[in-house]
Parts: sequence; C-alpha cells; structure tokens
Amino acid sequence: MSQNVYDNDLFFEKYRELRNNQDNYNTLIEQPAIKALLPDLKGKTVLDLGCGYGNNCIDFIKKGALSVVGIDISHKMLEVARKENPNELVEYMLMDMNKIGSLTQRFDLVFSSLAFHYVKDFKKLLYDIRVLLNDGGILLYSQEHPYTTAPKVGPTWTKDEYGNKVHYNLSDYMHSGKRYSKWFIDNVEKYHRPISEVINSIISEGFIINSIVEPVPDKYALDRRPDFKDEFDKTTCIIIKGTKA
Amino acid sequence: MSQNVYDNDLFFEKYRELRNNQDNYNTLIEQPAIKALLPDLKGKTVLDLGCGYGNNCIDFIKKGALSVVGIDISHKMLEVARKENPNELVEYMLMDMNKIGSLTQRFDLVFSSLAFHYVKDFKKLLYDIRVLLNDGGILLYSQEHPYTTAPKVGPTWTKDEYGNKVHYNLSDYMHSGKRYSKWFIDNVEKYHRPISEVINSIISEGFIINSIVEPVPDKYALDRRPDFKDEFDKTTCIIIKGTKA
Repeated sequence: MSQNVYDNDLFFEKYRELRNNQDNYNTLIEQPAIKALLPDLKGKTVLDLGCGYGNNCIDFIKKGALSVVGIDISHKMLEVARKENPNELVEYMLMDMNKIGSLTQRFDLVFSSLAFHYVKDFKKLLYDIRVLLNDGGILLYSQEHPYTTAPKVGPTWTKDEYGNKVHYNLSDYMHSGKRYSKWFIDNVEKYHRPISEVINSIISEGFIINSIVEPVPDKYALDRRPDFKDEFDKTTCIIIKGTKA
Repeated sequence: MSQNVYDNDLFFEKYRELRNNQDNYNTLIEQPAIKALLPDLKGKTVLDLGCGYGNNCIDFIKKGALSVVGIDISHKMLEVARKENPNELVEYMLMDMNKIGSLTQRFDLVFSSLAFHYVKDFKKLLYDIRVLLNDGGILLYSQEHPYTTAPKVGPTWTKDEYGNKVHYNLSDYMHSGKRYSKWFIDNVEKYHRPISEVINSIISEGFIINSIVEPVPDKYALDRRPDFKDEFDKTTCIIIKGTKA
C-alpha cells in the first residue's frame, strides 16, 4: 500500500492549519489555474483522486456535475470531507489510488489535485484512469513540478545575505525515482519523474496532450503573498490536461 | 532579420573547432537521441532548418530521402556545406528561418537541430512549418532545454572547492523572452520559453505531440566525456516530435 502521511496526527494537524489559511499556494495559484481548464461539467460524471476535504467534489456538483466519486487514502481527510462537505451526489470512498482498477463506474472526467507525485507506478495509474474514462473523457491533474521533486538532498534554494531567494538549486533532475522530503514530518515519500517521462507516459498510455500549465501568481496573489514572486524563478507545480485517445 | 552569429569570423572559427572535436555534446548526446526518433525516410521529402554544414542533409539522403532542402542564415556555414557535403538531391539555401513562408515546396519531415532557441516568434515559425508539411507530416526538432535558456545573469552552476559542479542555478524560468549569453562571443541572442509555452505553442499551431526526449549520456559518451555526468543534474537540450494534426 502507498504511504499515507495524511493519517499521521502531526501531519494532519499541520496540513489543516496550512489549508485553513486562505492565502496558501493551493488557493492563490494552483486551484485557479487548474479550475480554468475544467471542461463543461453539466450532466457529467467525475472521479476525484486524492479528494482530501472534498472541496473540489462539491465544486464539481455546483458546476453541474451529475455525480462525483471522491477517493482518498486518508481516513482522517475523509472524516472531514463527510462532515464539512456532505452531498447526496458525492460519494466519498477510502481507497488507495493504486486500487482504482477495482471501480466499476465510468467517468467523463478524472481530476486530481497535487497527488500524483505520491504515486510509485505512474504508468499503471494512467492505464487504470484510461479504462475508467468514457470515450472522449478527460484527465485533468496537477502534480509537483519535476524540478520541485528532483533534488535528492540539500537546501533547494540559494539565499542572499538578507535571506532572499537568489536561485533554485537544481540537481538530480534526470534521476527518476523515490525521494524523501520533510513536509511537517520527516520522510514524506514522493516520486520524481522528469517532464519527458511524465508526458511520454501520458501519451503512451493512450492520451492526447491538450495543454500544460506552469501556473504563476497574478497581482492579487502577489499582493497577499509577496514571497510567491519566487514562482517566476521556479514554478512549484505543473498542470496537465489530456483527452482519451 | 534574425541575429546571424555564425557569420561572425571568431564565432565561426571557434564553432568549427568545437564541432571538429568528435567528442562534443552534439555527436555524443543530441544527435543519437534525435536520430533515434526519425521516421522512415524512404521516398520522403525533408526540410532541414538551420542545416549548418549539411551533415544531416546528407544523412537523410543516405537513409533514403527523395530530396532534402537545407536552409541556413549563415553564408559561411553554407559555404562549408556546399564544399564538404554536396549532393544532387540536396539543395542548400541561404534563408532566415522567419522567411520559410516563401518556400513553395511541401515536405514530409521538417527537421531542426539546436536552432529554434534563436527564433523570436516561435508560433509564427510553427504556423509556417505546418503549412509546409504534407498531411501526416512530422516535425522533429531539438532546442536548448528551457533550464538552459532561463537564467538572465550570473554563473549557471554552483561548484565545490575542487571545481566540480554541485547544482545548477535555476532562475528566471517563467520569464519568457530574450536572453543574451556568451558563447565564444558576447551577446549571442536567444529566446527563452518555459516548457509549457513550448508545448502549448506546438499544440495550438496544429500538431499532436508524439514524444519528448531529454537526452542523457550513455556509457560510451561518459567514458569519452566524464564531465557529461552533469547532464543528469540538468539536461542541456530537449527534443520534441509532433505530427501535423
């Protein structure tokens, strides 16, 4: 089974604090960018992989989706989802992403926000997603940017004497594989894949690439979080949209 | 008109020295990787953008191409091409890449090796290429990797006390636009585009992306050039293959 840091008590609380602050990376940068690529959802069925608190599931219903299945590996995250974001058209399921091959429903959109970098076997995941998609179905997801996941060790930014970031320390980029990082807790497992491996996997598993976005902060975001200017030196995430071929 | 550094005497001589050394980046890494993606050329027509000395034009004929047009902005490069690589099936033309819209022939393959990062208007180039391609035609090209073109100033590598490269200093990645670099001579003009801009431009101008390669050295290359191990930290070029949609 995959690592499940979100059920770690310390991680869960720290993550909740981060997300409760409305001026975080997700709300200011990643979410507006990925939502801008959503197709018309009226009457469509959606699968949300790594649905977390369920906010996106509810948003899909508000945008007209017929039904949404949200899966997550974390019992604690789903507890919050069921309590704060219940909806009769949304089904929350406790499931590891590498088990979605067992789902019997079919979907028009498979969506995932910042979760695929936790997945070891990306090609298997893509294979499973394609099987779950109806003809013409869409995959829309975000993941940590390959240069975010690349470095194996060391500080990832070089700073000047005042503590300002000068440049990102890129290393190990072409070394695909497991990485350990500290994010609230030690040894959070992620999987680094160079951008060519990501894109070629999506294509070879039967998708046509529609667009790729490296989101940057707009003026509103920069006013609220001046430190997000560093996103122009090194974007944190990448968003990819593809259609079932 | 575009910058034409290859007709600068000093640049031309230094570049010729570099390419005459058989153990250079192009021969050991870029060329094997891009050649591996060539389609079957038997009976096909090929356009080589930035053909330089014409070596690839001759190779396409050896691989069975019906005819090849090689264009280059440099009179000096074409002089070498006509002298060292003449062939009745190859036509060398002095032409700026932003003028290819004036060509009346049509091609099955448009090929380009490490030249597109000199082009200011990438979308216009792609538009022109698509018009020049027959149905089902292929675009296969390499360019400097967006990591390579990104930094506006400063040393691009951090080295340890022994002079070994530790990590690449990535900055200005999301700032698309002109860059000046020193390569034999000062102020060589290049155009940086983030990978998302590159890929989305290709898609929006009417191509389906087939594959992307970030080439790395194999054992043979590493034996001859141990310094090429740094390509695993930061790949120098990217190769993209697309089909006319």
